[in-house]
Formats: sequence, C-alpha cells, structure tokens
Amino acid sequence: MIKTTRTDTLPDKLATLYAGIESIIGSHKPDIISIEEAFYGKNAKTALLMGHVRGAAMIAGHQAQLEIHEYAARKVKSAVTGNGAADKQQVLYMVKRLLKLKADPVTLDASDALAIAICHGLNHKLSKMGL
Amino acid sequence: MIKTTRTDTLPDKLATLYAGIESIIGSHKPDIISIEEAFYGKNAKTALLMGHVRGAAMIAGHQAQLEIHEYAARKVKSAVTGNGAADKQQVLYMVKRLLKLKADPVTLDASDALAIAICHGLNHKLSKMGL
Repeated sequence: MIKTTRTDTLPDKLATLYAGIESIIGSHKPDIISIEEAFYGKNAKTALLMGHVRGAAMIAGHQAQLEIHEYAARKVKSAVTGNGAADKQQVLYMVKRLLKLKADPVTLDASDALAIAICHGLNHKLSKMGL
Repeated sequence: MIKTTRTDTLPDKLATLYAGIESIIGSHKPDIISIEEAFYGKNAKTALLMGHVRGAAMIAGHQAQLEIHEYAARKVKSAVTGNGAADKQQVLYMVKRLLKLKADPVTLDASDALAIAICHGLNHKLSKMGL
C-alpha cells in the first residue's frame, strides 16, 4: 500500500503515489495494469480527488509502457463471485480461494485489487494465472 | 494547445497530454507551473475527468522537478483585473495590456493561462516578468 502524508500538498501526494507505483512496477515487472472503472457517484469533491489519483496512476503505467485496462466494479465482482452485487467479504473469500492463498489479503482494498487482476485474467484467458 | 483524439481511451488521452506538457517544458524550460485551483461544482462526472487531467499535468510538472502552484480562479482574476468576478474578456484585455502583447492571445483559455502565470508572478514579485 502506498501511503501519503496528510500535510503534503496535492501535487506532492500525487508525486508520492507516482513514485510508489513506479517502484512497484520496477520490482514486479508487470505487463498490464488493471484499474477499477471510476464510479463518480454524486460527490463532485470526491470524484475530483479520485480523478487526480487515477490520472497519476495511469501516467505511471503509461510511462512504463504497460497496457492499461479498466473494469467496472460490477464486472469484477461478477468475475470472481458470479454476482455483480457481491460484498467485499465475498470477494475476499473467492479471491483467497481462486488464488489458493494461505492467508487473507492484508486489507479488503488489497483483495479488491487482486479481484480486478483476476477479472482481467479471466477476460483474456491468461493461462499463466492458472484460473 | 494540446489536442487529444476523441476516440482514444482515457489512459491514451492522458498520455498524449502528459507528452505534450513534457514537450512544452522541454522547449520553454520553465521553473514553475501555475494551475488554476479546481472548482468541482456540482457535476461529479466533469470533476472526475478534470481530476484525471490535473493529475497527469501535475505529474508532468513534478517529473521535470518544477514547483507547482495552484491559484483560485477568483484570485487570478483579482490579480490581473482587480475584480475577482471579472469575465474572460476583461481578463484577456488586462493580460494583453500587462504583457504588452501586440495581438490577442489565441483563445480565451490561453488568456486565462497567462493570467494564472501573471498571478503567480505578482504573488512572488518575480521581477523578471516586468510587471
């Protein structure tokens, strides 16, 4: 998980995020980034902030010449649980099972992130994932 | 002005924007980027999109090790016209006058961008700007 400092300015927080993603890409050398499609809801302030974060993440992926894919939350949940309205606990349960993990993912957000990767794998029949 | 292709995906549009800003930074070698503070209004969809664009722009500035400053639109208008509620035509008029431009800036957006730079100059008493 990438943590930013509360008192930092927005550009500095985004820079921390960018550097964090860059470093993760450097150590894990992925070919693809899968991101949950943004759901903007009704709160414009939250949507604006989320946009900044997603923009920075997409640039990090692009600079590393990765493919970037977006999946709607419904599609992700459906891919791993068969139910587009599944809750996060159910997603975690199936992620653990599908990936044969011995322990739970560290957080529900981590489990969601794994679910998005699984969703991409299933959509592209990536046999390496062994799903 | 940086133009994106309508049919491109959002990550591709952001990449085009990022490359465009990178190229402008490369040719003009600025020390600072000044951006208008985001006004998120009521439209969450627009706010989300604007966030992506601003996030990409901020990363471009950060990667080039530039200082990044944000100014509220009211502050910018007030700095160049003395009226925080001035309209874009009035901003254009004063930008042209303050910078002793012979022709109008190409667009009202370009004039606004120059106004943000002037606002930063005035706030930091940048004597080089000759204001």
